Amino acid sequence: MNIGFIGLGVMGAPMAGHLLAAGHTIWTCLNNSPLPDALDGKSVKVVASPAEIAAACDTIIIMVPDTSDVERVLLGENGLIARLQDGALVIDMSSICPIATAELASAVNAKGALYLDAPVSGGEVGAKAATLTIMVGGPEAAFERAMPLFALMGENITQIGRHNGAGQTCKIANQIIVALNIEAVSEALVFASRAGCDPAVVRKALMGGFASSKILEVHGERMINRTFDPGFRVSLHQKDLNLALQSGRALGVSLPNTATCQELFNSCSANGGKDDDHSGLIKALERLAGHEIGAT
Amino acid sequence: MNIGFIGLGVMGAPMAGHLLAAGHTIWTCLNNSPLPDALDGKSVKVVASPAEIAAACDTIIIMVPDTSDVERVLLGENGLIARLQDGALVIDMSSICPIATAELASAVNAKGALYLDAPVSGGEVGAKAATLTIMVGGPEAAFERAMPLFALMGENITQIGRHNGAGQTCKIANQIIVALNIEAVSEALVFASRAGCDPAVVRKALMGGFASSKILEVHGERMINRTFDPGFRVSLHQKDLNLALQSGRALGVSLPNTATCQELFNSCSANGGKDDDHSGLIKALERLAGHEIGAT
Amino acid sequence: MNIGFIGLGVMGAPMAGHLLAAGHTIWTCLNNSPLPDALDGKSVKVVASPAEIAAACDTIIIMVPDTSDVERVLLGENGLIARLQDGALVIDMSSICPIATAELASAVNAKGALYLDAPVSGGEVGAKAATLTIMVGGPEAAFERAMPLFALMGENITQIGRHNGAGQTCKIANQIIVALNIEAVSEALVFASRAGCDPAVVRKALMGGFASSKILEVHGERMINRTFDPGFRVSLHQKDLNLALQSGRALGVSLPNTATCQELFNSCSANGGKDDDHSGLIKALERLAGHEIGAT
Amino acid sequence: MNIGFIGLGVMGAPMAGHLLAAGHTIWTCLNNSPLPDALDGKSVKVVASPAEIAAACDTIIIMVPDTSDVERVLLGENGLIARLQDGALVIDMSSICPIATAELASAVNAKGALYLDAPVSGGEVGAKAATLTIMVGGPEAAFERAMPLFALMGENITQIGRHNGAGQTCKIANQIIVALNIEAVSEALVFASRAGCDPAVVRKALMGGFASSKILEVHGERMINRTFDPGFRVSLHQKDLNLALQSGRALGVSLPNTATCQELFNSCSANGGKDDDHSGLIKALERLAGHEIGAT
Repeated sequence: MNIGFIGLGVMGAPMAGHLLAAGHTIWTCLNNSPLPDALDGKSVKVVASPAEIAAACDTIIIMVPDTSDVERVLLGENGLIARLQDGALVIDMSSICPIATAELASAVNAKGALYLDAPVSGGEVGAKAATLTIMVGGPEAAFERAMPLFALMGENITQIGRHNGAGQTCKIANQIIVALNIEAVSEALVFASRAGCDPAVVRKALMGGFASSKILEVHGERMINRTFDPGFRVSLHQKDLNLALQSGRALGVSLPNTATCQELFNSCSANGGKDDDHSGLIKALERLAGHEIGAT
Repeated sequence: MNIGFIGLGVMGAPMAGHLLAAGHTIWTCLNNSPLPDALDGKSVKVVASPAEIAAACDTIIIMVPDTSDVERVLLGENGLIARLQDGALVIDMSSICPIATAELASAVNAKGALYLDAPVSGGEVGAKAATLTIMVGGPEAAFERAMPLFALMGENITQIGRHNGAGQTCKIANQIIVALNIEAVSEALVFASRAGCDPAVVRKALMGGFASSKILEVHGERMINRTFDPGFRVSLHQKDLNLALQSGRALGVSLPNTATCQELFNSCSANGGKDDDHSGLIKALERLAGHEIGAT
Repeated sequence: MNIGFIGLGVMGAPMAGHLLAAGHTIWTCLNNSPLPDALDGKSVKVVASPAEIAAACDTIIIMVPDTSDVERVLLGENGLIARLQDGALVIDMSSICPIATAELASAVNAKGALYLDAPVSGGEVGAKAATLTIMVGGPEAAFERAMPLFALMGENITQIGRHNGAGQTCKIANQIIVALNIEAVSEALVFASRAGCDPAVVRKALMGGFASSKILEVHGERMINRTFDPGFRVSLHQKDLNLALQSGRALGVSLPNTATCQELFNSCSANGGKDDDHSGLIKALERLAGHEIGAT
Repeated sequence: MNIGFIGLGVMGAPMAGHLLAAGHTIWTCLNNSPLPDALDGKSVKVVASPAEIAAACDTIIIMVPDTSDVERVLLGENGLIARLQDGALVIDMSSICPIATAELASAVNAKGALYLDAPVSGGEVGAKAATLTIMVGGPEAAFERAMPLFALMGENITQIGRHNGAGQTCKIANQIIVALNIEAVSEALVFASRAGCDPAVVRKALMGGFASSKILEVHGERMINRTFDPGFRVSLHQKDLNLALQSGRALGVSLPNTATCQELFNSCSANGGKDDDHSGLIKALERLAGHEIGAT
C-alpha cells in the first residue's frame, strides 16, 4: 500500500521503517534534509512537496515537531490540502495543540477526507521497538482503517474519543502528570536529603505505598544516580507544557502547578540543563535550597 | 511485657489491640476520654499521667495528633520525662515535626533513655489489619529492640536513618508526593474533561505508561466516581503539609508546589470539603475552571 | 508629511487622529474593516496593501493586536518589506514579543531602513487625550526622528535602550508589576474581609505606608466598589502575561507569580469574567475562599 | 501614670522611652536580659514577673516577638492574667496571629479587663522617631483610653475594627502586599535585565504609571544599588508571612502568591540571605535565572 509519511526525524524514521518492513511503500518529501540512512535503498519515493504526496497516497502520516509545522504541511504552500483526495485519511502523530487540531481536521473534512490525531508516547526507544503508546482522536471508521498501521508501530493503542483533538488532549494530560510527578519526587527528595536522610533509602521505603509511581521508580533513581543524559529532554517537556498552558488558557482551565513547573524548567534551561533528561528538574529545586541531594 | 501506650484514638486503639493480643500488658492514661470499647476487659492498666506510665514501663509508645501533643506528653506537667527510667525506650509513632523530634530525643537521651520516631502510613485500615508501613529514625539498638513490637502492628518496616527525625522526614516526603500526585491527576483530569474527553477513558489509557501511579489508580478512580468519603481527610493532609512547609522553612528548602497545593486544600476547606477524602482536592481545580469532570 | 499608519482600531484611530490634526497625511490599508468614522473626510489615503504604503511613505507606524499581526504586516504577502524604502523608519507601537521584535528589526535593517519598537500604556483614554506613556527601543537617530510624532500622541516618552526590543521589554515589565500588584491587593483584601474587617478601612489604612501603590489606590477601590467594567480587560492582560511567560521561557527567566497569576486569570475567564476590568482578578481568589469581600 | 511594658527590645525600648519622656512610669520585667542602656536611670521599675506588673498597673503594653511569647506573658506561669485588675487595659503591640488574638482577648475580658491589639509598622526608625503606623482592633472605649499613649509613639493611628484581631489582620494584609510587591518588582527587573535593559532606566520609566508603588521606588532602588543591609529582615518577613498562611489556613483563604513568595524567601535563607533586607528576595529569582541584574 502507498503511504505518505512526512517527518522522518528521530521518531518518524524508525516508525516509517516498520511500515516499510511490512511491505508498504512510503512516499515522502524531505524539506532540505537527506533521507535517513536506515531508509536508504528501501521502497521509498521522494517527491517535491506534501501536495504531491497527497496526489499519490490516500493514507498520509504526519510526524513533525510542532503545531505550526503541521499547519504548514497541511495548509501551507503546496500543502497536503491542495491535492488531498476525496476519501483520503490524514493521521497526525505529532504532539500538537488539541484546539488547533480541531481546526485542521475541519479543513481536511471539508475536502471529503478523514482525520485522526494520534500522538504517541514512549520516545525513541518505543519508536524503534514498535512499542509506542498511541492515543487516538477521531471517528470510528478512520480509527479502524488506521489500526493495522498503528499495530505495526505501537502496542498500547486507545481511541480516546470520536472527536478530533481527543488524542492530543490525552497526550497533554499524560505530560502534565509526568512533569508534576517528577516535580513531586524532586521536592520530596531534596527535602529528605537536606533533612539528613539518604534519598535512596527514602525512595525505596516509599515504593509500594501510596507515593509509588513509575516516576518515583525510574526518574527517582536517575536523580539519585545523577544520570541526566536523555531520555526525554527538558526542552521537549517545556514544549509540551506550553501546549498544556496555552490550551488551558483557551479553555479556561487553571493549571497552577503545571505553570510553576514550567517556570522551574526555565531555571534548568537558564543554568545549562535544557538538554538534560527531564528528571534534571530536580536541579532547579536543589539550586533554590542550595543543596544537592546525596551531598550531605 | 509492660508497655506504655499514650493515645488510644482511631489509630492507637487497634494498634494497642494487637499488642494486647500478643500477650502484652498496656499501661495508659486517658486525658478525659473513656477507654475504647474494644480494649475494655483486656489487660489494660489506666493510670493518672504519663509520668506514672514512665514509672511502670520501660517501653512506651506515643500515638497522638500533633507536635504540641507529643511535647506535652513528654515534657509537660507530669510528663513522661519526669519519671523516665534509665535505659527506657520511647517510641513516638505520631506524625510530627522532624526538627522538634530531634529536640525531644535529646531530652529523652539526657535521661539515659532511647528514642525512636516511627510514624506510620496506611491509615485506620492498616492499623486494624496490622499492615502499617512504619518509617523509623533512631539508633540501631533501639530499632532492634522495638522490632518485635513493630512486627505486631505493621508489615513494611524500614529504618530510614540512625538519627532521630529520619522517620518523620520520610513520612513528610511521602505526604508531599501523595499530595502532589493527587494535584497532578486533578489538573490532568479537569483539563481532559473540559477539553471534551471522558476522564475514565483518559485515566485508563494513562495507566501502564510513565504517568502511572498508585494515586492515578486509586484516587483517580475516586475523582471520577465522586466517592469522596474518607479515606484520608483533607484536614489531616493539611496538617501534614504544614509540617512539610514549616520544616522546609527551618531547613531552607523551597517546596513551591507543596505550598500551592496547601492553598488549594484551603479552598476545599472553605467550600465545605475539609472532611472529604484528600482526592477531593480536585474540587478546588474544578471550581477554578467552572467545570466538574464528567459533567460535559 | 506622509505617514503610513497600519491598524486603525480602538487605540490606532485616535492616535492617527492626532497626527492628522497636526497636518500630516495618513496612508493606510483597511484589512476588510471600514475606515473609522472619526477619520472620514480627513487627509487619509487608503491603499490596497502594506507594500503600497511602504512605496508611498518613509515613516510608517504599526498598531496591531499581536506578534503574528506585525509579522504579517511586515513580512507577509504584499507586506511592508516588499517595497520598503532605503532610509525609511518603521515604528511598531503594538505590544508584542521583544525577541520577535529583534528579528523583525533585522529584516527591516537589512533593507537599509530603521526600526523602533514603541509600545504604549495608558489605554483608550490615553490614546484619545494624547497622554500615552511610550517606551521606546532602538537607535538614537531613529528615536530623535520619531520624537515629534511621539510628542503628538503621548506625554511620558522614554528611550529604554538602543537595541530593538527594549521598549517591548519595558512594557512587559510594566504588565508584570501591574498584574502582580492587582493579585497582591486581591489576596490582602480577601484575607482581611474574610477575617472580619471592612476592606475599605483596611485599604485606607494601608495607603501612605509601604503597601501603597497606584493599584491599591485605583484597583483596590474598584474591587471594593465592585466596578468591574473596563478599563483594561482581563483577556488583554492575559495576552500580555503570555508575552511575558513566552519571553521568559526563551530567556530562561522564572516568573513564578506571573505564571500563577495567569492561571487565576484563566479562572476569571472560565467564570464569565474575561471582559471584566483586570481588577476582576479578585473574583478568582474570592471563588477559592468561598467569600466575596464586603459580604461579611 | 504607671504603665506596664513587657518587651524592651529593638522596637520596645524606644517606644517605652517616649512614654518615659512624657512623664509616665514604666513597670517591666526582664526575662534574663539587662535593662537597655537608654532606659537606665529613668523612671523604670523592674519586677520579677508579668503577674507583678499586672498587680501594679492598670495599663499594660506588650511588645514581644511572636504569638507564643504573648501567650506566655499573658497566660503562662506568673502571667499577667494571674493578677490582672478589674477594668485594666492590655495593649498587645506585637505582630501575632489574629485568631489567637481573639482567644487571648476573651481570656482578658473574662477578668473584667479590656484588650486592644495594636501592631505597628515603620520599623526601628519609626519606633525611634515616634512615627509608627498603628493598626488597632478592639472596642471604642479601649481605643479612646489608649489613644494618648499611641499618640506618643506613632502618627498614623487607625481603629480598623471593633473586634479584637482587626489590627493584627490589617498588619498581615500590609505584609502580604509588601512581600508580593517586592516579588513583583523582582520578577520585572530580572526579566528586563536579562532581556538586555538597564533596570535603573526601566524602574524610572515605570514610576508614575500604573506600576508605581512605594516598593518600586524604595526597594527597587535597593535591588539596583545592591544595598541589602536591613531595613526589615528576610527572616522577619518570613515570620509575618507564616502568620498570613496559618491564618489563611484557619479561615479557608487561599493565598497562592504569598505561599510561593514564602518559598522564595526560604531560598534566600538557604543561600545566606536571611539577615538581608527583604528586598534581597530578588536574589532567589536571580538564582533561578542564573542572572544578576546589572550584570549584563
